[in-house]
Amino acid sequence: MGFLRDSFRMRWFEEKSSFENTIYLINGFVAKDPNLFRRALLQTTNGKENNERLEFLGDAVLDAIIAEVLYRKFSEKEEGLLTQMKSELVKASSLNRLANIIGVSPLIVTNLSQEELEESKVPGSALEAWIGAIYLDGGYAKAKQFVHQKILIPHIDWSLVESQNTDYKSQLLQHAQQTGQKVSVRFDPAEYKRGAGFLATIQWGDWLETGLGRSKKIAEQRAAQNLLKSINK
Amino acid sequence: MGFLRDSFRMRWFEEKSSFENTIYLINGFVAKDPNLFRRALLQTTNGKENNERLEFLGDAVLDAIIAEVLYRKFSEKEEGLLTQMKSELVKASSLNRLANIIGVSPLIVTNLSQEELEESKVPGSALEAWIGAIYLDGGYAKAKQFVHQKILIPHIDWSLVESQNTDYKSQLLQHAQQTGQKVSVRFDPAEYKRGAGFLATIQWGDWLETGLGRSKKIAEQRAAQNLLKSINK
Repeated sequence: MGFLRDSFRMRWFEEKSSFENTIYLINGFVAKDPNLFRRALLQTTNGKENNERLEFLGDAVLDAIIAEVLYRKFSEKEEGLLTQMKSELVKASSLNRLANIIGVSPLIVTNLSQEELEESKVPGSALEAWIGAIYLDGGYAKAKQFVHQKILIPHIDWSLVESQNTDYKSQLLQHAQQTGQKVSVRFDPAEYKRGAGFLATIQWGDWLETGLGRSKKIAEQRAAQNLLKSINK
Repeated sequence: MGFLRDSFRMRWFEEKSSFENTIYLINGFVAKDPNLFRRALLQTTNGKENNERLEFLGDAVLDAIIAEVLYRKFSEKEEGLLTQMKSELVKASSLNRLANIIGVSPLIVTNLSQEELEESKVPGSALEAWIGAIYLDGGYAKAKQFVHQKILIPHIDWSLVESQNTDYKSQLLQHAQQTGQKVSVRFDPAEYKRGAGFLATIQWGDWLETGLGRSKKIAEQRAAQNLLKSINK
């Protein structure tokens, strides 16, 4: 059986162009329209045809897929934290790294040098365009399958995503301990947006930041996040 | 036949709770899990359970659906314009209006007064949460069907969306004509981001704004858009 399957696959490979084989190796399934994938790789300078429109589509599709994963995986987390985790997962540097691992990067058609390419957002954008191509070629389910099986399951460490994104206050306290400065937190039951939540104010030395949230915990986390951002500016 | 179908529907309605009937009337299909839709309507103050997480999910799903429509419908438009059109379609005021038309608004569970509700983003957020509920209840295809049949086809005037969003330069020229001031445009083949496009500079009286783009046309549109934004600030 194994032999038959391998020999069938061999024959399929021999009959197809090398680009079709490459798509198969990256995606794990046969593309109906290889031209979509060709276009996803075009970061040409001032060229008529490029991958920007596919990137526009793939970006939105990837966001929806990631949003569902986070919704299901972190069923106890509030919306603010899910949003933070999503931003972290789809930020340019994360997508660039994934484009390299998955094998999309070396296929990109560009005038940029290798060094310029690595410093740009181009690899991550091509990965988004690639996901757009899968969506058009095979539908949402196929795009979801690709994102799960080729990206999320093998390459995302969820415990790391969670720990990096869910406790800004601890990060702040740790930071403050090193410098010996005192951190104080206070809450005002804010009337912002007609009674929708709390206002937390965190002070650390001369730094002062606020955060709004539906619970004290999330307000505090947001204030801590804002403070960390200010400090790191 | 017609009679039989109606009598079947009558019976179904009589057997179901009024909330299930309401979901059916809004969506056009029977919900597997009415509780998801119940949660989508909860904008409670400081409550444990609310619609924020569903809104997070529905927002991303709606974005993907709209992105595909725009990608297919405006096959000649560049990414920048698609992004503008998407923003316009999913902005809070548009979603609020749709939530009212579709009938989600009156069902929202909230402490806000009718006036406060109308001034807030709450109706649009509930609509996004409702779309999140459809996605979890019936999958992406059902969410897409709902967005197309209940929102886009009956309530969106595409020619208006296009004309409002695709020609900032004309808007600017029209504006300038009324005031009698001169508008000038110049292009620098910018080396920004390692040769990825053009830099357009538009001057109108004392106002000066720039725009970057892959083509002269898009660079000019972006500069015009930026200038319109500055003027309207």
